[in-house]
Amino acid sequence: MTQHICRTFQTAPAAVPRDDTAKYLRSGLTAEGFQAPDWLVPDLEDGTAPDMKAAALENVCELVPEHDFPGEIWPRVQWSYDDERFRDRGREEIATLVRELGDDIEGVVVPKVGRREDVERALETVADAESKAGLPDGSIGLSIIIETAAARSDLREISMLGSGPHARLTALVFGPVDYAAELGGRDLGDGRPRWDGLLEALSNEASANGLLAIGGPFDDLFRERAGVTIYNADAYADQVEREAQIGLDGSWSLYPKQTIQANRIHLPTPAELERDVHKIEQFNAAKAEGTGAVTIDGQMVDEATFKNFRNTVVTVRTVHGTRPEQTTELYDDGLLERVLDLKLSYQ
Amino acid sequence: MTQHICRTFQTAPAAVPRDDTAKYLRSGLTAEGFQAPDWLVPDLEDGTAPDMKAAALENVCELVPEHDFPGEIWPRVQWSYDDERFRDRGREEIATLVRELGDDIEGVVVPKVGRREDVERALETVADAESKAGLPDGSIGLSIIIETAAARSDLREISMLGSGPHARLTALVFGPVDYAAELGGRDLGDGRPRWDGLLEALSNEASANGLLAIGGPFDDLFRERAGVTIYNADAYADQVEREAQIGLDGSWSLYPKQTIQANRIHLPTPAELERDVHKIEQFNAAKAEGTGAVTIDGQMVDEATFKNFRNTVVTVRTVHGTRPEQTTELYDDGLLERVLDLKLSYQ
Amino acid sequence: MTQHICRTFQTAPAAVPRDDTAKYLRSGLTAEGFQAPDWLVPDLEDGTAPDMKAAALENVCELVPEHDFPGEIWPRVQWSYDDERFRDRGREEIATLVRELGDDIEGVVVPKVGRREDVERALETVADAESKAGLPDGSIGLSIIIETAAARSDLREISMLGSGPHARLTALVFGPVDYAAELGGRDLGDGRPRWDGLLEALSNEASANGLLAIGGPFDDLFRERAGVTIYNADAYADQVEREAQIGLDGSWSLYPKQTIQANRIHLPTPAELERDVHKIEQFNAAKAEGTGAVTIDGQMVDEATFKNFRNTVVTVRTVHGTRPEQTTELYDDGLLERVLDLKLSYQ
Repeated sequence: MTQHICRTFQTAPAAVPRDDTAKYLRSGLTAEGFQAPDWLVPDLEDGTAPDMKAAALENVCELVPEHDFPGEIWPRVQWSYDDERFRDRGREEIATLVRELGDDIEGVVVPKVGRREDVERALETVADAESKAGLPDGSIGLSIIIETAAARSDLREISMLGSGPHARLTALVFGPVDYAAELGGRDLGDGRPRWDGLLEALSNEASANGLLAIGGPFDDLFRERAGVTIYNADAYADQVEREAQIGLDGSWSLYPKQTIQANRIHLPTPAELERDVHKIEQFNAAKAEGTGAVTIDGQMVDEATFKNFRNTVVTVRTVHGTRPEQTTELYDDGLLERVLDLKLSYQ
Repeated sequence: MTQHICRTFQTAPAAVPRDDTAKYLRSGLTAEGFQAPDWLVPDLEDGTAPDMKAAALENVCELVPEHDFPGEIWPRVQWSYDDERFRDRGREEIATLVRELGDDIEGVVVPKVGRREDVERALETVADAESKAGLPDGSIGLSIIIETAAARSDLREISMLGSGPHARLTALVFGPVDYAAELGGRDLGDGRPRWDGLLEALSNEASANGLLAIGGPFDDLFRERAGVTIYNADAYADQVEREAQIGLDGSWSLYPKQTIQANRIHLPTPAELERDVHKIEQFNAAKAEGTGAVTIDGQMVDEATFKNFRNTVVTVRTVHGTRPEQTTELYDDGLLERVLDLKLSYQ
Repeated sequence: MTQHICRTFQTAPAAVPRDDTAKYLRSGLTAEGFQAPDWLVPDLEDGTAPDMKAAALENVCELVPEHDFPGEIWPRVQWSYDDERFRDRGREEIATLVRELGDDIEGVVVPKVGRREDVERALETVADAESKAGLPDGSIGLSIIIETAAARSDLREISMLGSGPHARLTALVFGPVDYAAELGGRDLGDGRPRWDGLLEALSNEASANGLLAIGGPFDDLFRERAGVTIYNADAYADQVEREAQIGLDGSWSLYPKQTIQANRIHLPTPAELERDVHKIEQFNAAKAEGTGAVTIDGQMVDEATFKNFRNTVVTVRTVHGTRPEQTTELYDDGLLERVLDLKLSYQ
């Protein structure tokens, strides 16, 4: 499988009770610039009401092939570790999606998984669908939402299913709303808890097994101040910044403005990029003179620090390769040129 | 076993060197209203001095049957994962309590457990005492205090002993004072550390296995300000609120005023209840029209969000069933009526 | 093996491109008073440039026996869980160090370990070197740096290798710079993340298995304010205080001023010592009268609280035994006398 980029995991209800039932799905498929998510997730689960599920599956099968979406398509199906009826619906949805859209989707997203055995069950379901559709082994990925106490308890064991070169498991996505309900967490007026311990573990286990780690949705989209309703830009950006700091690869978006912000925050800021490019240039010069650790702008820099600076540069290079309209909008030409020229190894 | 409610886990020394050696035990057994704890824990362990242990056991056996305590009785016995003398004393205490009070207690609390094997040892001890007393299998529960590095290390494995329909293990209770001493944590003047990671794991593992999770004691009962000593109401309430936010079921109380506060905080505030009842009413209406996710008061609401609102309502209904004097004191009649009328499922 | 004290884990590049290539190593070996680290770690890994590695090994073998360093010597060698070339270099370095310096070093520090199997590989490497050098089994310790996602994932299992009376594993040291690079953590302008969950687990697993737990380096040594560069004293002290609060035994130092601060912070402050000595005196008196739990200065104190006060006193006594010049500088004579006289057990 190819390397995945997922700064933004944008869910869109696949059917809504409007004249155009595919309104939000169509909007996601045609988004441009910073508003285009890296992953578009047509939602057949909680975002779609029970009596719209059939229409939702039809919308996905019809619209996805019609659009040349620049990122990846990962439909979310129904599932539940503790209710077989939902797993049966999920199996049918996966079979249909893989049969109808095998070449147009990168994989499926399965929510409400439980302990390791349940994730293995989901992996087998995808493998079956893939094989029945005559697709090559491993061509359809599986991403899972970690939103039950059982999945959190087994996170290390579940994540190990993703190690190895041909693993199907691709991303671990946090689901804080269902998770808070399972644990009985409360919103006493200043929001739900942050679950810092879980997020740190998610970042670690994903890195230990070559998976992507994605943060959870922020649902307080708007707030009112003295009679005026505004988009909650600061609170969402704060959450995405925290996720970026601890090494999550991307953030969940429920809304086009959230996609703009998360795409942006999961790129280095111009100041961050300038700082790290400068330190690499200085460190490369010091190493050429036989120094292992050197103080640059007050910071002691060695091989380990260098790896962090290199991450900054590699992220920009990778996104520049697939979404140059974003990188050229964000960085000035001189800086981008230094990024592309920089020597990143030394022996 | 029946479903347990434990908003408050109040320990009381079972014997103190006073004219009435049962002063605090008697006070707990006769408390009323918000001052009555859900669980009263007569303490034979650290709260009772070494040379009062025999008197303490006698007090418990004598007083508990004399009172019609409205909540549950869970005596705490002596134990230690790394000292057989304490385990021997605990075995004798458990045998006596179960034999003398089998019908009056819900279970026993065992402190200072170590790795999973030690908890299995405690489970066997209770099973033996139960069988010797001729009581039905599973009639005496076991709750344990997580306060050693070994128990924290094995928390996931220990908690799994509680899964299954007939499990004896009932509650996981945090013991921060012994825990800090084991780890060598320090109070540099602004209190002991919060151990956020442990508390998050406690909440998760309890939920994954159908157990209760209870926070640890707050021992700075009073503080002095310019010559006047006051009850430390804010600091305790802050701790209990944090515990409620991350989904702990209840909090430890050392003192009647702490019991009032913890009983109160582990009920939804009137504003929280009003908010969630309103959102359920709105969401039920939207779903009836075929909408899966809908924005209510700026928040995107779907099945997962709904579960959180439902938790709020279920808590109030449950406490209303057993302690109506508390719910009718806290909520106005109109709100309580809507709580009882609300439709909580939808297919 | 003897009990180890490690308030300070000071790394020093073992060779730098200067006239005196051993400048920093020599400086560490001759430091005095609060500036002398408990552990000096001559660095053959990232602190030393690739083409200075041979000179670095020579410097260590030559200088260490010439100095009567009052603490312990633990050279850091090259290693990598995912690159055999680095492990081969590490094996040669360990063989040389143990052969040449067997009596002068307490052990070796191995960085970038991975899962449990990799740590077992490192343990075998030390055992081999020890046996070839004709040294008694267990005479050379192993400390490891936890700085990969794999090692964090296996932390519980790795730490268990250290339990038992004859275990070679001695300290778990955090490596946040490599760790952040592995997880893709970002510095958005206000520093790297704190990894609170990892640090809490490190403290716990070390305590559960009789190991030392040591915090990671703070590399922002200096900062500039309006044209003046100053030593970053507050930020480093804040980090070390947090580490002390959660029960880490010591902190990493990159610089003599950091060593002064960490040695100091990992001793109780005079106010903390006075407070805890006073509470022990009061609690001893209350227990003599048959009280189990007693309120002292507003705090409810029992056996568990007492253990925390005892830790404070034991730390001072231990350091007083080996570095009396530090304790007599920090505490006044009257307080120190009470510390040495205090009765710490009661039965």
